[in-house]
Amino acid sequence: MSNLKVLPILEADAGDGAVPCCAPLSREPLGVEDSERIAVMFKALGDPVRLRLFSLIASHEGGEACVCDIQDVGVSQPTVSHHLKKLRDAGLVTSERRGTWVYYKVAPPVVAALAGVLDLSS
Amino acid sequence: MSNLKVLPILEADAGDGAVPCCAPLSREPLGVEDSERIAVMFKALGDPVRLRLFSLIASHEGGEACVCDIQDVGVSQPTVSHHLKKLRDAGLVTSERRGTWVYYKVAPPVVAALAGVLDLSS
Repeated sequence: MSNLKVLPILEADAGDGAVPCCAPLSREPLGVEDSERIAVMFKALGDPVRLRLFSLIASHEGGEACVCDIQDVGVSQPTVSHHLKKLRDAGLVTSERRGTWVYYKVAPPVVAALAGVLDLSS
Repeated sequence: MSNLKVLPILEADAGDGAVPCCAPLSREPLGVEDSERIAVMFKALGDPVRLRLFSLIASHEGGEACVCDIQDVGVSQPTVSHHLKKLRDAGLVTSERRGTWVYYKVAPPVVAALAGVLDLSS
């Protein structure tokens, strides 16, 4: 099961093709295209409010949270929606509407691959 | 030696106090201050040219590179300098002048802590 989950990292599962791909930075330098794709993800996490929203989703049970549970970050609801869209466009979370609310879920293989890029131990 | 290197993570070793600090996002949500400090680092990596420069330094022997070795990223030398300053201000690299050239070195404990924040396995 876990092996099956590794493969989709190499395919686009987000709208913008922003998917990790690469060996740890310490092993080889990134190419132009890879750096563009990965920078999109780091940029998505490079805003304090977006990072807090992402951490609220990631730390929620099952790595999934209703938008109704993560709105208390000191910005307006439209701004929350805007930030969540950025996280989703970057491929870091997925979203699903259920009834009234939209639920956001972290994309563990994508996040793991992103962390792997930062692995300097190899 | 490696133990001694762990402690400075909690202290500011970069100019802007942008130092990792925190448990993995999956364990607990980030507070306001922590998210601001960590977002600075992700933002620094959230530009394709900067990310390439960082990968060039990280993949160089010993995780250190002369600025003269990493200028071939398709932008002007002043732009390279500007990006390297951003990486340094974020605490991801340190710099040292030796004779004519400035050498940049990755800050492994800082990068490891940043990767640790993205660890969803815990």
